[in-house]
Amino acid sequence: MTKEQRERLQQQLQFILEIDKEKNILRQTHLSGHGRRENDAEHAWHMTVMAYLLQEYANEKVDIAHVMILCLIHDLVEIDAGDTYAYDEKGKKTQREREERAADRIFGLLPEDQQKLLHALFEEFDAGQTAEAKFARSMDNLQPLLLNHSNGGSDWLEHGVSRQTVEKRQGKTRLGSAVLGELTEEILDANEEAGHFQKE
Amino acid sequence: MTKEQRERLQQQLQFILEIDKEKNILRQTHLSGHGRRENDAEHAWHMTVMAYLLQEYANEKVDIAHVMILCLIHDLVEIDAGDTYAYDEKGKKTQREREERAADRIFGLLPEDQQKLLHALFEEFDAGQTAEAKFARSMDNLQPLLLNHSNGGSDWLEHGVSRQTVEKRQGKTRLGSAVLGELTEEILDANEEAGHFQKE
Repeated sequence: MTKEQRERLQQQLQFILEIDKEKNILRQTHLSGHGRRENDAEHAWHMTVMAYLLQEYANEKVDIAHVMILCLIHDLVEIDAGDTYAYDEKGKKTQREREERAADRIFGLLPEDQQKLLHALFEEFDAGQTAEAKFARSMDNLQPLLLNHSNGGSDWLEHGVSRQTVEKRQGKTRLGSAVLGELTEEILDANEEAGHFQKE
Repeated sequence: MTKEQRERLQQQLQFILEIDKEKNILRQTHLSGHGRRENDAEHAWHMTVMAYLLQEYANEKVDIAHVMILCLIHDLVEIDAGDTYAYDEKGKKTQREREERAADRIFGLLPEDQQKLLHALFEEFDAGQTAEAKFARSMDNLQPLLLNHSNGGSDWLEHGVSRQTVEKRQGKTRLGSAVLGELTEEILDANEEAGHFQKE
């Protein structure tokens, strides 16, 4: 290895060690079988496998490697910014600023080309405009929905959220996949019928 | 959705829920900062991000989407077969049979085409012959090495393993990447010097 190669690799290794911390960022979702709270790394892994297996349902043809990397890195900023619960309206007001600062610091550990690449991927996911980002965001919604549904809607019950509130987020799954949007509606119907949502 | 589509999707969803259990399969590696034990899902997430960021060091040109899915699914069989510690010679004797039975049951939840696909990917990783499998296996070795190194070699100290034993596994990293093989040797040298290996 030349001196330059060694420096580049050291920057990459520093980033790789830093992102280990994503395994300690807890979400509001619980694992199936009424398990413990899930962390961001597990969530990212699960939704990436889902993206691979469910790609046939994407509304538009997607580059699956691109979807996968979006899924894998979309929550890295939470190492600094923390997890903002999807239905925490107060937290969401400061979320963007907190996450941008986090992106600067965390991606900033990488060599410049990869720094730019990860910034761009993170922003692409956040904007949700490309076919890949739309489908990755569908996975981001569907993954906790499936776990929560398997646990009898306990995460919604705990937080006392209404169907309307959940719809605001889950309703967007159809932007990435009409089929999985339909599935989402069916799951929400079943949970509404079972009384798992707070009445508005 | 037609009846056939619905059945196919239900099989996929059953598999997706089943693999949630990978988050409860603990490994011998500890998280950085002398953290708790890592689980298989976290390990798979971490090594997949690594594969993406370190692909420039692969000995042969790799299809990165293919490397990524190999990384993501390679430990699913451990849901039934459990984690076999890399240096547990007794456990390794029954590992193959246990893992093949697990692959049949777990991948068997999927529609037939995806069942075959995942079986083939799992076997490809296991055989380690393709460029993608070689590089994915380098990540499988390097990821715990980096965590353990960051913790002062505590996992090796706890299990009293020798450098020679560690070399048997870690020495194969160079098959996927000469550069990362060189890095591995440097890390092992440093840990030997610091007395983190049992003398043979």
